[in-house]
Amino acid sequence: MTEAHELSAVEAARRIKAGDLTAEALMRSCLDRVVARDDAVQAWAHLDPDQAIASAKAADVAGNPGLLAGVPVGVKDIIDTADMPTRHGSTIYGLNRPNADAAIVRRTRDQGGVVMGKTVTTEFAWRNPGPTRNPHNPEHTPGGSSSGSAAGVADRQFPLAFGTQTAGSVIRPAAFCGAVGFKPSVGTYERAGVKELSSYLDTVGTFARSVGDVAFFHAALGQAPTPDLEAFGDKPPRFGLMVPFRIEAGAAALSAFEAACRQAEAGGAAVVDIPSSTGFEALADLQTVVMAGDSGRALAWEYDHHPERLIRFYRDSIATGRAISDAALLAVKSEANQGRATQAALFESVDAILTLSAPGEAPSGLAFTGDPLFNRVWTLLGWPCVTVPCGHGPNGLPLGIQIVGPVGADARTLAAAAWLERVLA
Amino acid sequence: MTEAHELSAVEAARRIKAGDLTAEALMRSCLDRVVARDDAVQAWAHLDPDQAIASAKAADVAGNPGLLAGVPVGVKDIIDTADMPTRHGSTIYGLNRPNADAAIVRRTRDQGGVVMGKTVTTEFAWRNPGPTRNPHNPEHTPGGSSSGSAAGVADRQFPLAFGTQTAGSVIRPAAFCGAVGFKPSVGTYERAGVKELSSYLDTVGTFARSVGDVAFFHAALGQAPTPDLEAFGDKPPRFGLMVPFRIEAGAAALSAFEAACRQAEAGGAAVVDIPSSTGFEALADLQTVVMAGDSGRALAWEYDHHPERLIRFYRDSIATGRAISDAALLAVKSEANQGRATQAALFESVDAILTLSAPGEAPSGLAFTGDPLFNRVWTLLGWPCVTVPCGHGPNGLPLGIQIVGPVGADARTLAAAAWLERVLA
Repeated sequence: MTEAHELSAVEAARRIKAGDLTAEALMRSCLDRVVARDDAVQAWAHLDPDQAIASAKAADVAGNPGLLAGVPVGVKDIIDTADMPTRHGSTIYGLNRPNADAAIVRRTRDQGGVVMGKTVTTEFAWRNPGPTRNPHNPEHTPGGSSSGSAAGVADRQFPLAFGTQTAGSVIRPAAFCGAVGFKPSVGTYERAGVKELSSYLDTVGTFARSVGDVAFFHAALGQAPTPDLEAFGDKPPRFGLMVPFRIEAGAAALSAFEAACRQAEAGGAAVVDIPSSTGFEALADLQTVVMAGDSGRALAWEYDHHPERLIRFYRDSIATGRAISDAALLAVKSEANQGRATQAALFESVDAILTLSAPGEAPSGLAFTGDPLFNRVWTLLGWPCVTVPCGHGPNGLPLGIQIVGPVGADARTLAAAAWLERVLA
Repeated sequence: MTEAHELSAVEAARRIKAGDLTAEALMRSCLDRVVARDDAVQAWAHLDPDQAIASAKAADVAGNPGLLAGVPVGVKDIIDTADMPTRHGSTIYGLNRPNADAAIVRRTRDQGGVVMGKTVTTEFAWRNPGPTRNPHNPEHTPGGSSSGSAAGVADRQFPLAFGTQTAGSVIRPAAFCGAVGFKPSVGTYERAGVKELSSYLDTVGTFARSVGDVAFFHAALGQAPTPDLEAFGDKPPRFGLMVPFRIEAGAAALSAFEAACRQAEAGGAAVVDIPSSTGFEALADLQTVVMAGDSGRALAWEYDHHPERLIRFYRDSIATGRAISDAALLAVKSEANQGRATQAALFESVDAILTLSAPGEAPSGLAFTGDPLFNRVWTLLGWPCVTVPCGHGPNGLPLGIQIVGPVGADARTLAAAAWLERVLA
């Protein structure tokens, strides 16, 4: 029998609405899973079981209104919660308890979602990793920066979670952990109450174990149109295959990608190659400069007041970013805006691009959360990205394939991802 | 019997002058050592044995004039040589054969030094490592960027070599390989014909197996005054013990450092603690920004014309450095100049500072040449630095101790290092 913590968010909400399951029973099942697995995975920055159960009970008492109807949600610990600490993965914020929920947390709760706890983030959603391990092998990184959200969802400790992406912090950890990750078009989910790293790049995203669940969460967060995951039912999508930085990709990732593309074609999709170019790849350089300049500004207070609490990489990067003048940074963002405008032509004859989610399996060790190179250009362009699981590598760890759509076409990109997910199943 | 390749430069030159050894015999002994050791150490970017022997024979025919009198010298492969390739560790320069010798190569040859070949450098004396291995354990890095010069001298393949330091590229590899490294005051040795990475920071330095030999090389390169290594004979030096970034140092490096300081005190040196401060350590942040801005300018041609040949770190760093405006970079250098002026007060009551050369032994693996953190501030300040061997770590690899003097006091700093070397022997 499927245990409650293994249910999809859609199915759990359905059962709760039907009276076949309570939010409390679901939460207790998730907490049992945590007890069994937390030593190995360490996904949590804050989890108070009594508080989580009390919140679930309150949802039951309220009659489980809203789309999310008592479903547990993991919240990355750079996202404000009024009733839990929000430490940003940093000792500087060891005692930080925000006054208010972030806008997306408020929306989640308005729809009956139960915030289960705060999930581990790398420090300031940047480089310095937390304790979380890959649920498939504790000797390997779960990826970052949304480490706990990716690992906890994949490990069936909760069905839905929030993350954020500035370079590759949603798509990469989702791929490494074997979850579905969704980074919508830039600006889709509100950022109020989310610790800033780059005002130009930061994008709130979500994790689940199926495209159906991230689409359900997307609708619950108030996004219109509600994704119609059958949109490509009769007429399969037209995919463009494009692998920038192919030379940096591992053999396993490339062969899994190519096998998935053949399956898509066999499933009826039109598949065309879109060559990458050095000009396109140069957008990654812009992403670096924007991230350096923006993060130097976003973390200026921490740099000035607590330099001794920042690791060298942060100090070096912040100092360098601050040396980029406002005018120079604005010029680079203008160039990036130009890229956003001109590169949209890629979608003239395809519905979505298929590309790698990461260079390969999760690397071994916890010191490095892996290279976001295969995410940086898409993040700079602000395009919606979905990763779905796509086989395993030589170490038995999951691989992902990334579906990228044009800006604003989030529902349609989710539909293309759902189509591919069905074909690969 | 001591083989010729094991002789110090001073002793080799003395024997050649006395007619007890020929430059050719010395070179043949060094080449025999290379044959025995090159598979393990891989210190060479270019070595043509026939050419090396011909150069040595020519020195013998000329009567071995000059102070260097036929002594072999290894030259880092970012330093121009008219008769050998100069590849800067980069495929972009795979066919590069400069038209003229660098100024320091010309001086070396004018003094009878025989350029044996070109030693491996990290790409552009920056991050991307070459094939060289630590002569004490081929599974460990020799450090960088002057990898081949440090490893080859320590391995007794040649008695003298040139390197360059922008962050920690002389002192760190010398310490890792168990050699003596000398980074003189900024601007001491000419940089004409040396590939630029940072106009503000780049400093040509040298490697040998004793302080006596780097002092001898210093004099041969035309520096006045000639170091008097007995300057502290009667009155031992006053040392200030100062360990910025102590929290980043390994236990083995710290205990070897403390033991050496006790030996210095037992030997009659006055020893005082000089506390570091966050303000002093913040000079490392300036070094980062200067290096980012300067390298973005120094490598702009390579970035614009061969972006596909640069690893991501280089592309990212160059793009970021170029986003720092000329005015902003100048302002940071002004701040660094201010540091150079005000920090000189540290030497009011001491002759030299004793500090760590590196955080510990050479790390395992060849992908990372180690952290230059313990060198960056001294390089920014432009002060002369010498590292001498100082015991071994838990893996049996060498450790070094660094002697730092005030700018311009190169001869006196070498004398203090020679005094310490005698005490530690």
